[in-house]
This record gives sequence, structure tokens and C-alpha cells, in this order.
Amino acid sequence: MSATTIPTFEARAYAASSPTSSLEPLTITRRAPLAQDVQIEILYCGVCHSDLHTVRDEWHSVMPAQYPAVPGHEIVGRVTAVGSAVTGFQQGDLVAVGCLVDSDQSCPHCQAGREQHCAEQVLTYNSPDKHLGGVTLGGYSASVVVDQHFVLRVPAHLDPAGAAPLLCAGITTYSPLRHFGVTKGHKVGVVGLGGLGHMGVKFAKAFGAEVVVFTTSPHKRDDARRLGADDVVVSTSAEDMARHAGTFDFILDCVSAKHDVNALLWQLKPDGKMTLVGAPEQPLEVSAFSLLVGRRSLSGSNIGGIAETQEMVDFCGAHGITSDVEVIPVQQVNDAYERLLRSDVKYRFVLDMSTL
Amino acid sequence: MSATTIPTFEARAYAASSPTSSLEPLTITRRAPLAQDVQIEILYCGVCHSDLHTVRDEWHSVMPAQYPAVPGHEIVGRVTAVGSAVTGFQQGDLVAVGCLVDSDQSCPHCQAGREQHCAEQVLTYNSPDKHLGGVTLGGYSASVVVDQHFVLRVPAHLDPAGAAPLLCAGITTYSPLRHFGVTKGHKVGVVGLGGLGHMGVKFAKAFGAEVVVFTTSPHKRDDARRLGADDVVVSTSAEDMARHAGTFDFILDCVSAKHDVNALLWQLKPDGKMTLVGAPEQPLEVSAFSLLVGRRSLSGSNIGGIAETQEMVDFCGAHGITSDVEVIPVQQVNDAYERLLRSDVKYRFVLDMSTL
Repeated sequence: MSATTIPTFEARAYAASSPTSSLEPLTITRRAPLAQDVQIEILYCGVCHSDLHTVRDEWHSVMPAQYPAVPGHEIVGRVTAVGSAVTGFQQGDLVAVGCLVDSDQSCPHCQAGREQHCAEQVLTYNSPDKHLGGVTLGGYSASVVVDQHFVLRVPAHLDPAGAAPLLCAGITTYSPLRHFGVTKGHKVGVVGLGGLGHMGVKFAKAFGAEVVVFTTSPHKRDDARRLGADDVVVSTSAEDMARHAGTFDFILDCVSAKHDVNALLWQLKPDGKMTLVGAPEQPLEVSAFSLLVGRRSLSGSNIGGIAETQEMVDFCGAHGITSDVEVIPVQQVNDAYERLLRSDVKYRFVLDMSTL
Repeated sequence: MSATTIPTFEARAYAASSPTSSLEPLTITRRAPLAQDVQIEILYCGVCHSDLHTVRDEWHSVMPAQYPAVPGHEIVGRVTAVGSAVTGFQQGDLVAVGCLVDSDQSCPHCQAGREQHCAEQVLTYNSPDKHLGGVTLGGYSASVVVDQHFVLRVPAHLDPAGAAPLLCAGITTYSPLRHFGVTKGHKVGVVGLGGLGHMGVKFAKAFGAEVVVFTTSPHKRDDARRLGADDVVVSTSAEDMARHAGTFDFILDCVSAKHDVNALLWQLKPDGKMTLVGAPEQPLEVSAFSLLVGRRSLSGSNIGGIAETQEMVDFCGAHGITSDVEVIPVQQVNDAYERLLRSDVKYRFVLDMSTL
């Protein structure tokens, strides 16, 4: 099918036109639903640090941004139309879309439910759009059209605004905690109490682990405990850092700025594992000794597969877990980015798309 | 028992008196065998890069050297005497000693056979000597006295000179290959064809894996294939590096100088694992994206436990595996260090201690 001949419709959106532009209103083109597609009216869209990295082209070396850029991959909305081959969704369903909108669905990774490892994956924004050309446009928009395989169901009793960040912050923290088998009897560190970190604390506690939050901000102590942390280490304090040194089974490192990973690696017990879920622009300096001594490992993790994302949303439904959010009108998104850079948010901005 | 009252004897050795000194003959003091001890006449001692790092105090920040320093932890010799409580060894046995000569033998790590993770471990050289004070003195010596738990048996049919490097280079590469389950059907990269790397190739092949050697030295192609490699990648060639990109299950990184680990991490398939066994002095620069994309991990590994070391020596006995060595008189050790720095050795220098 030629990219120029498929039916389309117009949708309102918020977009950046260059790395230095503010986001502003823009009318964009969406494809009309194809046979496998679900058309969704977006109710809420979370504001992820990746959105800011992309619109400002801060990840240029690995994923150069194309403009106009419409970010947003923490989408909750209602189904407004479905394609002729869609069986699992109908008009009115509460649904969600995360970071992925397509993959080849046939490679070994996809067959194993790890679409996040598929070489042909299509991200929700800033990936080549095979239907319309250009790049995919994300959830800072009134609507989106997505292949049914990449649409998640949201339990009706979850707050839809609080559920939106589950689609990136939620799965990004849930997946490695599950992959590395965090459970009762484990001691888990969560580094950085932001959008990702506060979800990491909630999940690690829900899985039964003892949870210690590492933060550079002493004023977050009380809030960390409110979220479920058993202890809080102020990582700038040598005394604090000594208290749990060498005792962690697993550390989830949610920091997206350059930081001292060696000091964190030494917090692990032998055979302990640390996983990065933040993506600092600058390389991290890793001492070989931090890994050699005690056979420690440093890995990374990036969202999760579609089946695992549904499992996570269902787990949240069963345990009443949502993100702590600050719902804002879409017109405040540029201010929100500045506040995000100052860590001035508890813990995720969510755009109310009815204000668009 | 006071450190001043136990019986001792004198032994010839080769020692450095400062970070800038050559190694020279020195008479040192050894304890006479205590009840649990085995006294060993050293036949051969391998020359490990760690020896050079230590005598030149290049690991000062983590393990400052004390002088006089007698390095050497790839020891093969014959039992000359045993303590009253020694049951497993007798005079004349061919035995070996590796990097460890003591641990608390009671902590969970020791109980699990992972003495290399014991907080009270005593290294063969440059560790506090609880019997005599000062630091432990290694295998560049005519004899050594070691607790029987840390003495390994060497199959009589193995060449004792070629067996010496098994005690560090051997176990250092065997342990992570076993720990990460390398087996038939796996594709394994071995980075750096030196003392460690050439053993990594032999073990990975013996475990049934497809083995690709990464080297900066095109002239090592033929030798890599002779040692068992199925292919050789010259890591300075973009064309070579593209050939296997994204296809490795496991990479054993044996390089002890600073190098580009990101280029190697991208050689791994999703969920692939890379383990460092070299110990560069300078921190490695690791891009978070190299780990996040495909949930790759970078770990370290450091020798192995005593039971696993015996398992490795026995495996070598069963499969006829020894190190490729250049046997030299002890008087050539200073020249050998310079040649080691130029990678001018195939693949391990071994000191013939009969020349002392």
C-alpha cells in the first residue's frame, strides 16, 4: 500500500519544530484505521524524560530527532473506532498505548513476547512511519491509531490519569524487577526518586522485597517512606552510604544524568546485580574492580514486551497501584519540562488532553 | 599463637623493593608447617599481569603494594612436608596453589565454595599475613607453605610448567564461562589473545561453543585459529566488526588496558552478557544505551572458588588442556615484564624455579 493513498484524518497535537523550540499546537495527520488498527481518543498522556530528550535532540547520536516532533508514549484513552479485523477491542473500551506501536511480530524476540528487542520495532514517536512516511507522532495529541497487538486494556477501576505513566515508567521498572526475580527476602535499592524511581519502590515493595531508596535529596526522606521504602540513603553522605554497603541483591538505577555508578556497585553483595533504566547522555565511568570483585553485574533494561506490559497493568489493577501524578493542561507542558529538569514534580506530569 | 613465636625457615625468592625496582634475589621467611599446612617445593610459577601491576603499585588505589613484594600466584610444585592434621596430601604429591591461600572458611560464600567472595580472603601475595605479620609473599620463591584447603592436586600426566598458568589464567576464564553456562550452540567472543584469552579460547571450544577471537593484532589470526577459534575479528576493522554484530551469547573480555567496551557490547545479541576478567587501571566508559538496548549486561569475574579450581584442573587433565608457555629462568623475569607489556609472549611466561 502506497503511503500516499491510504485514508487519513486530521488531529490536534502539541509539537516542537526544532531542538530549541517550545512545544506549540499543530494539526497533524493520522491514518484512518486499517483492518488491524484501533483508533483511540487520548484522555491522558504522561510526560516522560525521554520526551524532553527527544524534542531537544539530546539523543542525537543514537536516535536523531525529526521535526515537527510530537512526543508522548504514556497514553490512556478510549477506543473510538476499530478496523475490520480487530477482535479484542470495541468502541468505548478504556485502553492504553506505551512506547511501541509496531514490530515484525515474527522474529524470535517477538515470538518470545520481547517486542522491545525486535530489530524492526517502531516506537510511538520519532520512528519511521511505514504507513504515512516521516516519523511516528506520539501521544501529545487528541487521538492515535495503533495496531491492536500494541494496545493494552486498562482495568476500569484504575484512575486513568494515574495509569498513564504505567505505560513507560511502570513497565520500565516492573520488567527488570521481574526479570531478575525480585521477591520476598531480597534487599533492593532504588536509585533516584523520580517518575521511574517512585514506581520502582511501589513494585519492589509489592513483590515483597526490603526496599532502600538512594537519593541526593534529603528532603525526599519522608516521601520515600510514604511510598513504601524501608530506609533512605542520602547518597552524598558517606555515613549513609556505609550503612548498607555490600548488602543488596539488586539495585534499580533510575537516574538519567551522569552519576557515580561505582559507589552504587559497591553497595551490592557478591553476585548482586544493578540495572540501569535511566539513559544519561554522557558515558558512565565504570571501574573494572567494581565488577570483578564479587562478580557483580551492570545491565540495562528498556521497557518490556507487550504481554509483560499487560501483565504489569493487570498487576496494578489487582494491587491498586498507579503513579503519583500532577495533572496539568497541555498548555503547561513547556513549564513542566523546566520543572522536570529541576526534579520539581511528584512524580509524573500527566497532560489532560481534554484541554487541547 | 603469637606471630613472633612460631617456627620458621628461610627460603630463596625474587622480590621488588619499591615500585620502580627490578626484581632481585632475596631471602624470605616462611612459617614451618602448622597442623593444617602443606609445605611445597615450587617447580614452576607463571608470570601474571597482576604480578606486574602489584610490584609497580599500579593498583595503588584499591590494593596498595607493600615491599619487599614477592609476586606469583600460578604455582606448581611438590609436597615436601605436611602438618599433623593434613590428611589429603603427602610428600611427593604434585600440587598447585593459585591466588588464594586462606579465607574464613565459615561465611556463606565459603560454605558455598566461593572463597573468592569471602571478605576475609587472603591472597597469595600482598595480603596481610596473619601468621608472620607483614604481607603474604608469593610464588617467585623456592617454597611456600599453605593451608591444605587451598592446595590443589595436579594430574601427574599434565606438563607441570604448562599447568602452572591454570591456577590464575585458567580458573579466571573457566569460571565465568561455566557460571554463564557456555555450551554447545552458543556463540562466544574472546577479546584479547594473551595469557587469559588463549585459555578462554581453549575452554570455550572444549565446552562446545562457536568461538570468535577479537584482537587488535592481525598477525594473531593464524594462531587464534590454531588455538581453536572459528573466526577472528580484527577489532580495528569496521568491516570485521560488522560481520558478527549483535550475534554473541557471551563475550569474555580479557583485555587489561583501557578499551572500547561499547563496541563490544553491541556485538551481543539481546540478553547477551559480557564479562570482564582483565582489570584496566582506568575506568571504562560505558554508554547506558549499550546496556539498555537489548537488556545487555556487563559483569566482572575474578578467579573462582577452590572446589571449582580443582574441577578446572581435573577438566584440563581429562581434556589434555594446558597453557601455551615460554619457560624462562627466574633471572629473566624483569625482561619478561617488558615483553609482557609489548604482548610479546605466546602466551604465558613461566619461571623455572630450579634456576633460582
